[in-house]
Amino acid sequence: MPSHDPICVPPSITDPASFGFHSCPGGICAAQGISAAGIHAGFRADPNRKDLALVAADATCACAATFTKNQFCAAPVQVSRERAATGRARAVILNSGNANASTGEPGVRCALASAKLVADALGCAEQEVLVASTGVIGVQMPLEPYITGVPEAVSALAPTAEAAHDAARAVMTTDTVSKEVSLEGTIGHDEPITVHVGGFVKGSGMIMPNMATMLCVLATDAPLTAEAAQCALSAAVSQTFNKVTVDSDTSTNDTCILLATGAAGGPAIGVDSPDFPALSAAIRCACENLARKIAADGEGATKLVTVDVVGAATDEDADTVARSIANSPLVKTAIFGHDANWGRVAGAAGKCGVPFDQYQVDIDFLGVPVLRAGLPLPMDEQDMLRRFEEPEIAIAVNLGVGDCSARIWTCDLTHDYVTINGDYRT
Amino acid sequence: MPSHDPICVPPSITDPASFGFHSCPGGICAAQGISAAGIHAGFRADPNRKDLALVAADATCACAATFTKNQFCAAPVQVSRERAATGRARAVILNSGNANASTGEPGVRCALASAKLVADALGCAEQEVLVASTGVIGVQMPLEPYITGVPEAVSALAPTAEAAHDAARAVMTTDTVSKEVSLEGTIGHDEPITVHVGGFVKGSGMIMPNMATMLCVLATDAPLTAEAAQCALSAAVSQTFNKVTVDSDTSTNDTCILLATGAAGGPAIGVDSPDFPALSAAIRCACENLARKIAADGEGATKLVTVDVVGAATDEDADTVARSIANSPLVKTAIFGHDANWGRVAGAAGKCGVPFDQYQVDIDFLGVPVLRAGLPLPMDEQDMLRRFEEPEIAIAVNLGVGDCSARIWTCDLTHDYVTINGDYRT
Repeated sequence: MPSHDPICVPPSITDPASFGFHSCPGGICAAQGISAAGIHAGFRADPNRKDLALVAADATCACAATFTKNQFCAAPVQVSRERAATGRARAVILNSGNANASTGEPGVRCALASAKLVADALGCAEQEVLVASTGVIGVQMPLEPYITGVPEAVSALAPTAEAAHDAARAVMTTDTVSKEVSLEGTIGHDEPITVHVGGFVKGSGMIMPNMATMLCVLATDAPLTAEAAQCALSAAVSQTFNKVTVDSDTSTNDTCILLATGAAGGPAIGVDSPDFPALSAAIRCACENLARKIAADGEGATKLVTVDVVGAATDEDADTVARSIANSPLVKTAIFGHDANWGRVAGAAGKCGVPFDQYQVDIDFLGVPVLRAGLPLPMDEQDMLRRFEEPEIAIAVNLGVGDCSARIWTCDLTHDYVTINGDYRT
Repeated sequence: MPSHDPICVPPSITDPASFGFHSCPGGICAAQGISAAGIHAGFRADPNRKDLALVAADATCACAATFTKNQFCAAPVQVSRERAATGRARAVILNSGNANASTGEPGVRCALASAKLVADALGCAEQEVLVASTGVIGVQMPLEPYITGVPEAVSALAPTAEAAHDAARAVMTTDTVSKEVSLEGTIGHDEPITVHVGGFVKGSGMIMPNMATMLCVLATDAPLTAEAAQCALSAAVSQTFNKVTVDSDTSTNDTCILLATGAAGGPAIGVDSPDFPALSAAIRCACENLARKIAADGEGATKLVTVDVVGAATDEDADTVARSIANSPLVKTAIFGHDANWGRVAGAAGKCGVPFDQYQVDIDFLGVPVLRAGLPLPMDEQDMLRRFEEPEIAIAVNLGVGDCSARIWTCDLTHDYVTINGDYRT
């Protein structure tokens, strides 16, 4: 007789207290040595809508980044990928309203020119300025908004929570809320040092990141080396932003950048430092916080959905099955309709080519065991309807093959998704 | 200077005249030696809705079949797969309203019992009866509707177009129209023989078949051997039903069965027969006709969308890119919204891991060249809006890598899809 206990899933690291950190105010400017600004520069027609964000360190500092693996990568991705590889940066200039993707050589020239405007205004080398864009694909990017906007953004730079919020708002497209995070903790074995990790992200549609999400800028004042920053960021991104899917569409512009100013003081932190694990956990926690906010604010979404797959032969198998469920339009519309149609979860799990024996599979839907060893259990429809009132929906599948697992965050598929994307350009 | 001529795509075999056949009346009963019936048996509550279909040959005949590769394959698939492997069959019993999937051992027992009822009524061996089901997953299948319905269906069996239509209607779920095809042609080098290929299919949602589509029954009166029938069917399915996607969700119940009665007379046709190529083309043409009808009647669809990818290094690469475009919710909602947002086609082509150089890619949208060698061309929005009025939408991409190609049929993603699937069980 198979157990009817709920499926046991791995713990989340959503709670920063688990590694000695706590939430704090400030957004990306929580990190000492970071200033930000967000203004209207003219990429969008609406003068009340901010569309240019600037994040600058007080001095050139360590940086790390991950970018989209889409073959149609945007011009700013091509520019920033090469520059971030040096491990040093001073500033990031971001815009919304135009993705500068599928724009050929003219697009690359515009991205380079925009970075030069920032470098000239800040008095740093061009190579130290990274660029990121989001918006419509296939339309040439105008330089004019940068020419007037960059000086204005540089003047507006401030190390405040308000400036951080302006920057976060300036990169929003179909996002309904700005998405920020800031954490504070103490590291240092001999001499305690207070450090911060802050950041913001935009992302709501064209979200199934592959190495990064739409646009994300993080900063820490911890004295991470570039190598340690990249190591922590890559590990965090693979388990957070790369585990989110709104609509299975990987963007041409995914960019995630981490600046490490070192303004908190103390000796440099490399990957072998005793402080690295806590900082790495803080960076992952910040990314997970923002990743969940992306899924919850998925275009048209009414629910944040967490899909756990356990009992898989490999992590890759678990990821494939979880992603197959999370991307299934039938699963997503059933959640929107408050229909406990868990058979669609079974169908999505079975379609993706991962081998398993259907007579060994358990499924929990909204925390309720509905399938054990391939046999359906009686289900209380009224109880299910009550559980659908919660803002978060949990789906768990045990494949009964091995010990590996994966968690994917997604959202439901609604009329508003169709409305938003049926007339995005108009 | 790259050419602005439209991308050249491979020809279709939609026109049966290209291999000497023509359309004829009769549906599946166009094949001599085939009778059909469709009745209300009680799988559905609505007494006006047919829900049980029976297709029977006058005598045991050659058969071929393909089935879903979903790991959660339904009970009737488990039963029919084993039986069809013998290459002999007499009848197929199909129901709508319950998929008999994720129902464990009780589901298999019910499928076997339903086949025995048919065998007893027709006076044939149990092994010669195939079973197929479609409907909700995860609910135990009742035997009662078979007990009363099978005798009624056997009584109703008739070799007429009307009976064929009843059978086609009885397997509909969210389909808005029944989907039938019938072709007639002459084969035989020494003595001409008139042969027919007829069939019906159901399918509208949970459509991205992998080895077959939802439920399809085909019949021919040509004296195909079982081996030749399987060879022709497998080849046809791989290029037709397996190239359709409505929502990327592979069903647990996909089944495609071909009965070859031989009632047209003449010597047996094996794979080496000079008549095999024309018959194989007729079977593929019938499948393509039905596959296009599935895409056009995709849940909530307003448009049939054909995605051609050419210039790929391998057929598999072409299929992956075409499927990535056809399954992109952003591409599909743009088509629904009559938004010529072809940048989403570029994004979807680039996200799927197939390597290419974005600066070698051409894209045509609605027959209009919009991207050449990675550079956007000027686009007449008014002309695009006019082209969106057509019931069929063409997307073509030339990857500029090699000589391989693929064609995928799909539909747009609409409010009605969300409505239909938000409350499917209620």
